[in-house]
Amino acid sequence: MSISETWLLPDGVADVLPEQAQVIESLRRHSLDFLASRGYQLVYTPFIEYIESLSSLSEANQDLDLVSFKVIDQLSGRLLGIRADMTPQVARIDAHVRLVEGIARYCYSGTILHTKPQNFSASRTPLQLGAELYGHQSIEADVEMIDVMLGLLETTCGLEKNHLDLGHVGLFKSLVKYAELDKNNERLLHDLYQRKALPELEEVTQILPYGQDFYNLGRHSGNLTLLEQNLSKDVLQDADFKEAFEGLKTTVFAIQQRWPNLSIGLDVVELRSYHYHTGLMYAVYAPNHAAPLAQGGRYDGIGEHFGRARPATGFSCDLYGLCEGQFKEIETIVAPKGLQPDLVSAIAQARQQGLCVVQLLGNDDLSSVPSATHQFVLQNGVWAIEKIESISK
Amino acid sequence: MSISETWLLPDGVADVLPEQAQVIESLRRHSLDFLASRGYQLVYTPFIEYIESLSSLSEANQDLDLVSFKVIDQLSGRLLGIRADMTPQVARIDAHVRLVEGIARYCYSGTILHTKPQNFSASRTPLQLGAELYGHQSIEADVEMIDVMLGLLETTCGLEKNHLDLGHVGLFKSLVKYAELDKNNERLLHDLYQRKALPELEEVTQILPYGQDFYNLGRHSGNLTLLEQNLSKDVLQDADFKEAFEGLKTTVFAIQQRWPNLSIGLDVVELRSYHYHTGLMYAVYAPNHAAPLAQGGRYDGIGEHFGRARPATGFSCDLYGLCEGQFKEIETIVAPKGLQPDLVSAIAQARQQGLCVVQLLGNDDLSSVPSATHQFVLQNGVWAIEKIESISK
Repeated sequence: MSISETWLLPDGVADVLPEQAQVIESLRRHSLDFLASRGYQLVYTPFIEYIESLSSLSEANQDLDLVSFKVIDQLSGRLLGIRADMTPQVARIDAHVRLVEGIARYCYSGTILHTKPQNFSASRTPLQLGAELYGHQSIEADVEMIDVMLGLLETTCGLEKNHLDLGHVGLFKSLVKYAELDKNNERLLHDLYQRKALPELEEVTQILPYGQDFYNLGRHSGNLTLLEQNLSKDVLQDADFKEAFEGLKTTVFAIQQRWPNLSIGLDVVELRSYHYHTGLMYAVYAPNHAAPLAQGGRYDGIGEHFGRARPATGFSCDLYGLCEGQFKEIETIVAPKGLQPDLVSAIAQARQQGLCVVQLLGNDDLSSVPSATHQFVLQNGVWAIEKIESISK
Repeated sequence: MSISETWLLPDGVADVLPEQAQVIESLRRHSLDFLASRGYQLVYTPFIEYIESLSSLSEANQDLDLVSFKVIDQLSGRLLGIRADMTPQVARIDAHVRLVEGIARYCYSGTILHTKPQNFSASRTPLQLGAELYGHQSIEADVEMIDVMLGLLETTCGLEKNHLDLGHVGLFKSLVKYAELDKNNERLLHDLYQRKALPELEEVTQILPYGQDFYNLGRHSGNLTLLEQNLSKDVLQDADFKEAFEGLKTTVFAIQQRWPNLSIGLDVVELRSYHYHTGLMYAVYAPNHAAPLAQGGRYDGIGEHFGRARPATGFSCDLYGLCEGQFKEIETIVAPKGLQPDLVSAIAQARQQGLCVVQLLGNDDLSSVPSATHQFVLQNGVWAIEKIESISK
């Protein structure tokens, strides 16, 4: 193996160089400030935890378990997991560490690690940023969360071309319960819905109780009016189904009111993380991208495993995804060496304004500072900043 | 094992809750901005790398190797290390990724992981922040680096009570070479110096070539004048020794010039990371703390393993160490629910000013927002922010 091969990075792992790092850093700050202004309080969660804490989300933990790196704790001999998602950690904090009565709003941002990339182009070290709201079961909490997610995207990468997808696992879940469907059929339908396999769905549903309703749920998954017209009266009047249906309707209305220009789509049989989510689900997609820019949903009871089951709703995104391919040139002002008070004070002043100033070392000239774009020159006894024209950038 | 035991975090691992997280977040931003203004360009290094890249610092790698967690890469089957220090990663970038001619200045900040705490009270997940300067061998580069380190500490945690320790491995190294000492005796002396065991040192050095010089190096390790008076003439005139000695002298002078009120101490037989460092070493200590607030030194040739050996000097610190025990209360303004334009605009305005505003949900009252400190009230038709007096905080 040659030197150069030796130092290649693993697949799905990358250095972030200064031109890109400063874009991401600024996005990170901007995002956290935005969330803070909405009342979401910053927490830093640990990079390692006992594996039981990290993969605590009942059935959903299988997915998380598969993507989590594990190491042995040399102090305790116990198995540690490296965080692959910060949501369970924040849930642990809400349930076990910071026992807030009433609503708790948290936000977080940090690197997470995945054993395998989550999709074709995904990083194995995403920079996750997210917000969670604990302690309120109402649809209003979901609306706030979606509104915050949209506000964040608007202020960071713009929303014009993007698209909000709304779903609600409660429609399918309550229909399964109402029709007393067994686990096998539930799984079969779940699979057909996910594959959008309508012809197969039509065939399969013919022999199921309330089969026509399951079929119509898939057929009219994007249109609440058609759904209402085509579902059985008694299904529509089932308390659980009605709550989910009305919740989705209320959400669409509330979001349209707040974001009148936003493109909104519905998919009531979009059942990603079906075992994990318990209510409304939301995701924002950019054109020509398979993976959502941001996504989330309701996951009540997440803290149960930690001793306090609370209603919860939240979203997360990968900051690398929000500023893909964005770079910013670095500007550097070069100053001569020396400690003359007028020079020192001119440099200090520029730095205080957020400018970047480098002083030459030894007998170096401008060429020793490859990022040099400007220089300090003495004009009529005053240190002035001048653009360097001669160096081709 | 009870629930509560199950969810305890591993030793040396902690959650950072909002009151502390916002202090650290602000310190992190402030520090990176400070370094950027000095020309140090931000890089994000990967959390995992092939183990060969991470533990590449020749003899020094044994220490790093011991504290690095390892996992198997499920994609390549190769061994990955989780970063325990970001310096080798930045060296890899300088040597192999971003081939800057001239001086390269980098800074970084991120969580690193240690298998075992590095000292009694240390975290196993420090938030490392550091700066490195590549491509300049002069003592002026070291002086810049120390100046930047001091400037950073001054602007973040103050310098009044702190103390700068300077050393230079070159004095001992060149004396070993000059006296043609073998590895065993070199190791023995290194150990005695580290233990400050003067009586033992006196005994051992009696039978060594240039023993008196080795003894005096230890005896007068903190005083360059006494050293100069007590060392043999021919040692003082050895080119390597002289360079190290003069370098240290120049540094003390230059730092005193820039930081006239700073307490500076010398220790020419402080040989921590002896195999790693190649020249000047610097550390800042706070009173009553065994671990330094920040430390660094020259480590020329670090990039050799990556195909480009360049002069290098740099420092790092643990941000948690810089703001130990600091907390800041969170202020939250509570607004009533509703989408009335005047209310919406008052809220938006407050948020833009960096204030944190939460709108009530459902039929909630103030008690649903545990962090509430202020509220929006309508005064003569205008929404005003009012401190909440009745809630005892």
